[in-house]
Amino acid sequence: MANKPSIPKGTRDFSPAEMSKRNYIFDTIKDVFRLFGFEQIETPAMEMLSTLMGKYGDEGDKLLFKIQNSGDYFSALTDDELLSRDCVHLASKFCEKGLRYDLTVPFARYVVMHRGEIAFPFKRYQIQPVWRADRPQKGRYREFYQCDADIVGSESLLNEVELIMMIDEVFRRLGIRVAIKVNNRKILAGIAEIIGESDRIIDITVAIDKLDKIGLDNVNKELSDKGISDDAIARLQPIIMLQGSNDMKLQTLKSVLASSETGIRGVEECEAVISGLSAVTLSSQIDIDLTLARGLNYYTGMIVEVKALDVEIGSISGGGRYDNLTGVFGLKGVSGVGVSFGADRIYDVLNQLDLYPAGTGGGTRVLFANLGSDEVASIMPAAARLRAAGINTEVYPDTSKLKKQMGYADTKHIPFVVIVGSDELAAGTMTLKDMVTGEQCPVTIDRLLDAVTK
Amino acid sequence: MANKPSIPKGTRDFSPAEMSKRNYIFDTIKDVFRLFGFEQIETPAMEMLSTLMGKYGDEGDKLLFKIQNSGDYFSALTDDELLSRDCVHLASKFCEKGLRYDLTVPFARYVVMHRGEIAFPFKRYQIQPVWRADRPQKGRYREFYQCDADIVGSESLLNEVELIMMIDEVFRRLGIRVAIKVNNRKILAGIAEIIGESDRIIDITVAIDKLDKIGLDNVNKELSDKGISDDAIARLQPIIMLQGSNDMKLQTLKSVLASSETGIRGVEECEAVISGLSAVTLSSQIDIDLTLARGLNYYTGMIVEVKALDVEIGSISGGGRYDNLTGVFGLKGVSGVGVSFGADRIYDVLNQLDLYPAGTGGGTRVLFANLGSDEVASIMPAAARLRAAGINTEVYPDTSKLKKQMGYADTKHIPFVVIVGSDELAAGTMTLKDMVTGEQCPVTIDRLLDAVTK
Repeated sequence: MANKPSIPKGTRDFSPAEMSKRNYIFDTIKDVFRLFGFEQIETPAMEMLSTLMGKYGDEGDKLLFKIQNSGDYFSALTDDELLSRDCVHLASKFCEKGLRYDLTVPFARYVVMHRGEIAFPFKRYQIQPVWRADRPQKGRYREFYQCDADIVGSESLLNEVELIMMIDEVFRRLGIRVAIKVNNRKILAGIAEIIGESDRIIDITVAIDKLDKIGLDNVNKELSDKGISDDAIARLQPIIMLQGSNDMKLQTLKSVLASSETGIRGVEECEAVISGLSAVTLSSQIDIDLTLARGLNYYTGMIVEVKALDVEIGSISGGGRYDNLTGVFGLKGVSGVGVSFGADRIYDVLNQLDLYPAGTGGGTRVLFANLGSDEVASIMPAAARLRAAGINTEVYPDTSKLKKQMGYADTKHIPFVVIVGSDELAAGTMTLKDMVTGEQCPVTIDRLLDAVTK
Repeated sequence: MANKPSIPKGTRDFSPAEMSKRNYIFDTIKDVFRLFGFEQIETPAMEMLSTLMGKYGDEGDKLLFKIQNSGDYFSALTDDELLSRDCVHLASKFCEKGLRYDLTVPFARYVVMHRGEIAFPFKRYQIQPVWRADRPQKGRYREFYQCDADIVGSESLLNEVELIMMIDEVFRRLGIRVAIKVNNRKILAGIAEIIGESDRIIDITVAIDKLDKIGLDNVNKELSDKGISDDAIARLQPIIMLQGSNDMKLQTLKSVLASSETGIRGVEECEAVISGLSAVTLSSQIDIDLTLARGLNYYTGMIVEVKALDVEIGSISGGGRYDNLTGVFGLKGVSGVGVSFGADRIYDVLNQLDLYPAGTGGGTRVLFANLGSDEVASIMPAAARLRAAGINTEVYPDTSKLKKQMGYADTKHIPFVVIVGSDELAAGTMTLKDMVTGEQCPVTIDRLLDAVTK
């Protein structure tokens, strides 16, 4: 008796219906990436562990899927090494390759290896799966796609402006109402600097984030509990209560951060981005949000995050600027800025809001029923005619009961069925059934082509 | 000093230019798959080793990339087990997952796991990478894409007919002249049966294949050297010299194989497929070719293989019918028939024949040069207008020398550059440069839209 097959936990099969929806998302994102001049690359699923290790922190190193070397890797190990049962050490002997953990490190590796053939600024997009040996849970998978667009080799803030325009266009096309939240790492550094608490920026943003929920007094209490000095808390008050339009926020920050050179640079960068965006028409609101502290050890300038307005879910897109992307591979001074779209969360949002357009997927449009070999022989030229006109067409392969064939059309959501039985064969005609209205009528090939093209 | 990064041997990065060409191939194949009613699925890169092992022979098992388990897998091993240094045994303790080796076994696993939700006959296509720890060599990679379309749950020969029509349509669209060679496993079984040499069918087809090169006498000598009896060789003569039209070949086979029930069934199946195809217009020639012995242990009916006529290269597509696809996972009686397209070889053929259509890739169509911040501010609405019209448009992010920006446009093969300098800014106009002809002229936004849309 064969075993019941299964798939590794945290991984998924995608059915045709799911693939149609996923392709709709990927195609929308790709079209917008190209609309803004990004070009696609792909990198191998496997990277050398020397490329991956040490890039995602100790926790990340543990979450890498490692691939066993081929050949006899035991003979080179001493008895002591083997009996040490030291997983980390032994894995380094058994494995030299791992599955990619994100698209950013492979991209940095790509830029370094191909720098001689790249025209900078390099605008690349990449849509591929990544793998993480995380504990699977609702909405978190061990294999999932990332959709990244980055520009490297240009420090111009016009890149930030265009990336936000691009985010706006993706969600406009998908019909998802979003708020695009922006911040700047240098503003956060400035805040830490003026209150003399450079290490506490995460504690501070976490507390500020609770203002709406717990009120000012409680925020201040939390800051105090976390060990922030009274003096620093007093200085933070205008920042905690930062409100109003983006312009008002920027004015407040300018005066509060006046003594921090870095902070003022952050405010100016933010101002330039907001001002650049004011010259174009956007569908989404742009909010300066100081509680954005995404990838704090990583980003060096703008930080951006996208929240869906009509569904409770984490951020569905995000990104920012990171200086020195490629430094770890020996190429200094290359600045990058990019965004990433969370396809799985976007999928959930579109499902919850039922936002998939009708006809998503480009499935079969016409099914020719099969009522016998003579009938099929007469059908084949008509099917070829439809296909030549670009209409997705099937001929049911077996001479099964018509009811079964109709059921097949229903399951695949095929809108038209063409029936040629002995009557039609004798009369040299075909019967067209509209599966939505249930209407039937006799048609010639030209009428058929006309009816199914509409 | 950081290490120079590299990628695992046998894997590849794909640059934007390569991705455009690859996408052209994949999109062409996908469009045709859908034209014939196939629906896409995807399966995880990782499968359980219990799903993969034993499906590809002993050699295949060795070529699986195995993924190291997470956690402490050493503590459960005895000292003796560890010191045995027995790779195969220990790998089974260290690893329970592997990378997929092809798309067929995952598909069979998918059909079994999802049989309750599938509408049979199930026409699925799947385009994903597979991994094999083969020795890399020219044209053979450790990571490569397969493009498969299969129908399961229908024994009708109409599937064979439609698959060949589909192959024909793919290569017609790609502009590659091909010969589609067909054979039938049952014909080969019949030949072996009538000459009483059931085990020698590979030796026989290899020898027959040399007829054009070495002549009949040498073919017969080779058969004799391989230990085929004189009597059997005598009976093989009409088969070795099988020539002429498909109909003539079928007539000869009918008389030679008259005493083999299986053989006659194969001839009839082949005849039905050829006759079905004669009712439709094909671009390619269809040749019955008894030397096709592809996947002999695997296929049970039709075998098909595609040869490019204008390039010396192995087969660029192939497939056939296999009964009992899912039996190994406990689901009996499911027959399948399918084809697979070799994207890497098709890529090589299109490159050698220079068959990529102009404009493959959907790259950037218009670059706005950046000659200063005021100039850029005036450009942004025009860029937005072009993008709203669906035209892939870039604004150069940095105020670099115009020559550098023109070089960027050249490298990315951008056909139009729009220049707004101080003169244009004062005059409220733009200069459009056609990068192919070198012509320049002043344009309004409407004229620009018109010019770049053509």
